[in-house]
Amino acid sequence: MTPSVPPASAATRLYHYPLSPFCRKVRLTLGEKRIEVELVEERYWEKDPEFLRRNPAGQVPVLRIGGRMLADSQAICEYLDEVFPQPPLMPRDPDARYEVRRLCAWFDGKFHAEVTRKLMGERVFKKLMGGGAPPDSAAVKAGARDIKTHLAYMTQLLEIRRWLAGNDLTLADFAAAAQLSVLDYVSDVPWHQFETVKDWYAKVKSRPAFRSILADQVPGFRPARHYADLDF
Amino acid sequence: MTPSVPPASAATRLYHYPLSPFCRKVRLTLGEKRIEVELVEERYWEKDPEFLRRNPAGQVPVLRIGGRMLADSQAICEYLDEVFPQPPLMPRDPDARYEVRRLCAWFDGKFHAEVTRKLMGERVFKKLMGGGAPPDSAAVKAGARDIKTHLAYMTQLLEIRRWLAGNDLTLADFAAAAQLSVLDYVSDVPWHQFETVKDWYAKVKSRPAFRSILADQVPGFRPARHYADLDF
Repeated sequence: MTPSVPPASAATRLYHYPLSPFCRKVRLTLGEKRIEVELVEERYWEKDPEFLRRNPAGQVPVLRIGGRMLADSQAICEYLDEVFPQPPLMPRDPDARYEVRRLCAWFDGKFHAEVTRKLMGERVFKKLMGGGAPPDSAAVKAGARDIKTHLAYMTQLLEIRRWLAGNDLTLADFAAAAQLSVLDYVSDVPWHQFETVKDWYAKVKSRPAFRSILADQVPGFRPARHYADLDF
Repeated sequence: MTPSVPPASAATRLYHYPLSPFCRKVRLTLGEKRIEVELVEERYWEKDPEFLRRNPAGQVPVLRIGGRMLADSQAICEYLDEVFPQPPLMPRDPDARYEVRRLCAWFDGKFHAEVTRKLMGERVFKKLMGGGAPPDSAAVKAGARDIKTHLAYMTQLLEIRRWLAGNDLTLADFAAAAQLSVLDYVSDVPWHQFETVKDWYAKVKSRPAFRSILADQVPGFRPARHYADLDF
């Protein structure tokens, strides 16, 4: 069995990219559980052979922990929650666990495809990865429209719950905050039209686990002025 | 707590589409656990308002069970495994559970995007959904090339393991078999170049849970002659 407390000597290392929402979800989970981690920036789209050896899927995040290399943000986060159960980020009841997983899939899959990939993918990652293709303005427009549908859906949930999946903070909150935080870096979230979601985000943002994310800087893209402000 | 055996009277119903790999993953899980289910075919791309009310994500599968409506194939399958633990489709050890989840994400995400969406999406779903756009031949070609990379990766795993994630059948096998079975319907799997994967697929295919999948018929697309053949 894997030990249930992080051994102090373990060189835990996360291969990540600062504006990747999936890496941020893992960083938030590690932070919440107070697991010390060394961050190694990985320009994963350059397909460095050494990196591909660590993760044949060629994606970040990759977490080195206890001598193993782990990939896929959801698999990593559930693993961390099972091995380091305090504080819990998954409820115990199967119905409640289902709801957390449904919402993680919602933000990792649907929100990412409909919003993050369209707004960040077109305007930021296309530039970072080079190649010189201009942003697809129809995609950007669709992303700017669809983020409102998602924020309205989050409002519905947060009007009847303290956190997204229920009355406790869970992985679902981190999955959602990870997506929104990268969009917030480039000022793409219309917070003032969605006060309920803004209040929820302020709560997530004020957790110690969020600090390293608020300190992220990507050369060529300055964060929005309010990005690191807890009282935005 | 939810009961740990399926009540005989529960009208469990799956809203599905026959050639959806994600629906097949849930059907295989229900079948393995001998949960009786009524299948309701849902042309989800027509965005029927009643269907959107059941699942705001607008996707299949949607499972009605115990009076609840559940969405997202991975969240559903993990829920079913927690509530109906026999026979188990997830191991108990966190390291082994991680590996199952990593592989489910691999097939649901990477394999689907690189192979299934390109081969089935272009040639079958484009036609089913109407609109008259011809298949994108570059995408079809990429899918036909990339399936071989995936089958080679599966071979590597299966050379050291009885099943994909270890020595027991798990959700990872169903996630993979679900993708391959829809491709096999239209004869897109080069089985004879990958005998190790073929032997594994023959084992999955012979399980009683697979029967309803082998009986699927989609108007306008006849299954390949060997599709339902256990000795293909």
